[in-house]
Amino acid sequence: MKFGKILSVVVATSVAAMGLQASGIKLSDAEMKEATQVYFDRCAGCHGMLRKGALGPSLEPKVAKAIGTEALKMIVNDGTPGGMPGWGKSGELTPAQTDLMAKYMQIEAPMPPEKSMADMKASHKILIPVKDRPTAPEAGAKNWKDYFAVILRDVGKIAIIDGKTKKVISVVDSGYATHITRTGASGRYMYVIGRDGKASVIDLWMSDPKNVAEFRPCNDARSIDTSKHKDYLDKYAVIGCYWPPSIVTVDAETLEPLKIVSTASYTYDTNEYVREARVAAIIASHTKPEWVINIKETGQVWLYDYSNVMNPKITMIEAERFLHDGGWDLSKRYFMSAANARDVISVIDTKEGKLVKNIPSQGVKPHPGRGANVDHKTLGPIWITGHIGSNDIVAIGTDPENHPKNAWKVVKKFALPGEGGGNLFVKTHPNSKYIFADRPVNPDRKLQTQIYVIDKEKLEVVKTIPIDPKYLKSADPKVAMRGPVHFEFNADGSEVWTSIWGNKLTPSVILVYDSNTLELKSVIDDKRLITPTGKFNVTNTMKDIY
Amino acid sequence: MKFGKILSVVVATSVAAMGLQASGIKLSDAEMKEATQVYFDRCAGCHGMLRKGALGPSLEPKVAKAIGTEALKMIVNDGTPGGMPGWGKSGELTPAQTDLMAKYMQIEAPMPPEKSMADMKASHKILIPVKDRPTAPEAGAKNWKDYFAVILRDVGKIAIIDGKTKKVISVVDSGYATHITRTGASGRYMYVIGRDGKASVIDLWMSDPKNVAEFRPCNDARSIDTSKHKDYLDKYAVIGCYWPPSIVTVDAETLEPLKIVSTASYTYDTNEYVREARVAAIIASHTKPEWVINIKETGQVWLYDYSNVMNPKITMIEAERFLHDGGWDLSKRYFMSAANARDVISVIDTKEGKLVKNIPSQGVKPHPGRGANVDHKTLGPIWITGHIGSNDIVAIGTDPENHPKNAWKVVKKFALPGEGGGNLFVKTHPNSKYIFADRPVNPDRKLQTQIYVIDKEKLEVVKTIPIDPKYLKSADPKVAMRGPVHFEFNADGSEVWTSIWGNKLTPSVILVYDSNTLELKSVIDDKRLITPTGKFNVTNTMKDIY
Repeated sequence: MKFGKILSVVVATSVAAMGLQASGIKLSDAEMKEATQVYFDRCAGCHGMLRKGALGPSLEPKVAKAIGTEALKMIVNDGTPGGMPGWGKSGELTPAQTDLMAKYMQIEAPMPPEKSMADMKASHKILIPVKDRPTAPEAGAKNWKDYFAVILRDVGKIAIIDGKTKKVISVVDSGYATHITRTGASGRYMYVIGRDGKASVIDLWMSDPKNVAEFRPCNDARSIDTSKHKDYLDKYAVIGCYWPPSIVTVDAETLEPLKIVSTASYTYDTNEYVREARVAAIIASHTKPEWVINIKETGQVWLYDYSNVMNPKITMIEAERFLHDGGWDLSKRYFMSAANARDVISVIDTKEGKLVKNIPSQGVKPHPGRGANVDHKTLGPIWITGHIGSNDIVAIGTDPENHPKNAWKVVKKFALPGEGGGNLFVKTHPNSKYIFADRPVNPDRKLQTQIYVIDKEKLEVVKTIPIDPKYLKSADPKVAMRGPVHFEFNADGSEVWTSIWGNKLTPSVILVYDSNTLELKSVIDDKRLITPTGKFNVTNTMKDIY
Repeated sequence: MKFGKILSVVVATSVAAMGLQASGIKLSDAEMKEATQVYFDRCAGCHGMLRKGALGPSLEPKVAKAIGTEALKMIVNDGTPGGMPGWGKSGELTPAQTDLMAKYMQIEAPMPPEKSMADMKASHKILIPVKDRPTAPEAGAKNWKDYFAVILRDVGKIAIIDGKTKKVISVVDSGYATHITRTGASGRYMYVIGRDGKASVIDLWMSDPKNVAEFRPCNDARSIDTSKHKDYLDKYAVIGCYWPPSIVTVDAETLEPLKIVSTASYTYDTNEYVREARVAAIIASHTKPEWVINIKETGQVWLYDYSNVMNPKITMIEAERFLHDGGWDLSKRYFMSAANARDVISVIDTKEGKLVKNIPSQGVKPHPGRGANVDHKTLGPIWITGHIGSNDIVAIGTDPENHPKNAWKVVKKFALPGEGGGNLFVKTHPNSKYIFADRPVNPDRKLQTQIYVIDKEKLEVVKTIPIDPKYLKSADPKVAMRGPVHFEFNADGSEVWTSIWGNKLTPSVILVYDSNTLELKSVIDDKRLITPTGKFNVTNTMKDIY
């Protein structure tokens, strides 16, 4: 078990906490250990390690006690219409675990440990020194700029797939349940961050791409990016930690740690101190030596100037609380950032270093990923997001200069067919007529297992593509294949790829469609493709094309 | 008791902590309350609320237990040669309290409470609204630019004294044991910060200067300053909190809170997380909209750009750990900052926004206050500091352009006569031939009670001025009058003032000397002058002349 060591610290710390809590509920050490692991795997992402709430509501003991054991069990088992998954119903938790979690919620959260520098340094490994790496792409790597890094979520691996041959070139270890991968500015290195805070870097110039370095500065993380300014190509990478809440700058080639900055601070609106102020999305500016960093709980966007890396300059911009993901507008000047629990898109002007506007997203829990950009014939440049909690797709005008009437408001809103939200990602490419949307967390089986095709000009769903049932056959009787999740285009935008999100027992496939005719062109079928989710094409990731 | 409310929270919190500690030592609630108060008053300044150490060593229970009760009692009673005062010997703690503190050190430190926004807002009072304040100096206030604000430390008051008439014009309430006062950029307002975190602002344009607003954002604080850039005159003030460790920006006229930024972060060298990263000296740039802020425990100097006050831009400069006080060089470009527990002066170039150098101070525990600047005939511009832990006075060259050979090193070192350190302040003025130095924490009675006069050109002590014993008569048989402490010049620099630091039972005096002939010119003797310490002349404070 990867988390054995952290957990034993967490559990040890928790003994003290248990001693203090007045609830009649008692858990054994083994139960505490199991519940802490389940909480980390399933709950912490939305509710926070300290249970203060974020995308999901606060789960502090006083709240949980007021709900009561029976109601908590129902919620954990069945989920809620607001977006809470039914962990029991889906088979991901056993009835005993559902029961355990209902109890665990009513006792004090164990304080997660601070990460010591010794822990951190012990985790740093240069697997292949810079001098032993290729100095140019090797013979077998000629298509490297069209490679896809595909997250194999539940097995902690990354598949590197050639976008031209559709062959799986290599499968490398990564952190647990990788959240995102990013390329360096040159595209040569692919950076991977696991939910367990382990960062790794894969050298795509090798015929058989391998991890060349790894480093685990956090216990829990979601984001990584690199220095994309022209004077800092492949110089730095940055890791955003959920716990300990911090920004860790590392050398891009070796992942050697350089600088840590805490993000614990005060909420922008109520001025309350938040120890667990987590780092959500990070995006690198192409024009300034700057990272744009979402600090979730405090509702600030930090512009982090890395030009003097040991003496960073940080502009702390008030935006909105519970910032999560987001992406560039078409001009790459404005960062469109979703404060999902507040149903708001915060627009940051990175040229002026200020908030432009907090825009109500007109849906429930916007979840753009990076969003989708369209240069629309009549509306001008627009940026599009879907929602987890409702079936709304909205387009926001992003060109105040030439389309001032449309700027910074929802200029078009339309619905995915059928009830409920469940959309996680929208994606497009300049060479496709369409935007593609998934819906993997909609509880309806039919709605969950089809692709939604949106016409860029009409701004409506013009087609739904159901997934052939043969790709949805689960080897695990308790866990169904979830259906298509996440889209990525190949380098020239002629194809769009989606993953069939399955389970650990079932090798799955990646389906490749023509991005304009919508024909299924290829099925990437490889026994090693277990739980494929996010896919990141080198060229599109390098250039932030979406 | 001013601290009743905080203490009850601290003590309530401590009950939990007590439950956890394995030490055989048990304290009653009343003892915990008393010990917590004594710790706050006498110990926290040097050892930290969480006892992690700063100027003084760590006092965490594991350390204290290793020392043992008897040795701890001896240290608390007698002090140490390193600068720890003998609290028992001096009569400031009773034998019972000395005993209590030796025990208290061996149990877990109670976690001080976070300051809630509600607590904060409840403490904010506009005593005289802006519209009801004078629009020009009132008739009785014609000398306001030569007023002195004098801290009456142990009674929580500020005396406003006319620098021309030497009359006490008014005595106003302040926070407890005020640490510093600063003027706004126009000089009209005098800002005061108590050790208890209470800030107040006095309007010097009134014939009878009064507090016009007060606000207590912290439980423990040391610093306050104002926006001194020409575009922000009298616009903002900034309060540096020890606990909760944070920077609080307020409206300069009303002290209304605007923005809080946490300073909890990582040590610059070992990358360890420090919850209690305290704000030590703050100094306002005259040329940029920027505050220069010492973050003690992490060893960073923050350049805090307040031009967009709700979205501050902070440059985090690595300097040295345990930054405490410091001041401008003669050009006001370089901030000379003492990392006292590391015996280092860190030089920050505020024009370039970077560390110039960490300079070993060649003495033990430098304590410059703001230091003293001299434009020396042969050495060029130099900046001078004394030390608490040794009798060294050192001069550092500060003009890399015209005196590059002398820049950023100790160019002259000389000693105060007699053994031991104990110097707290040096001060000078362009119109005086001398630098004046005190020695109030030297244990030797004679050394403690004289003024040391340093010739600016010779850079040596040319005279000592013993204080007439009639000014040192203590009404409290247990606590001697400590002797002269801190110097300040009048606006034209012709006079230098020093306080006789006494005790709560004894009205004391301020002695006024001719700054060139060294003659005693006046004795300011007023029954209200109880424990006078720091003095701040409006013109010199406004212009940072020292």
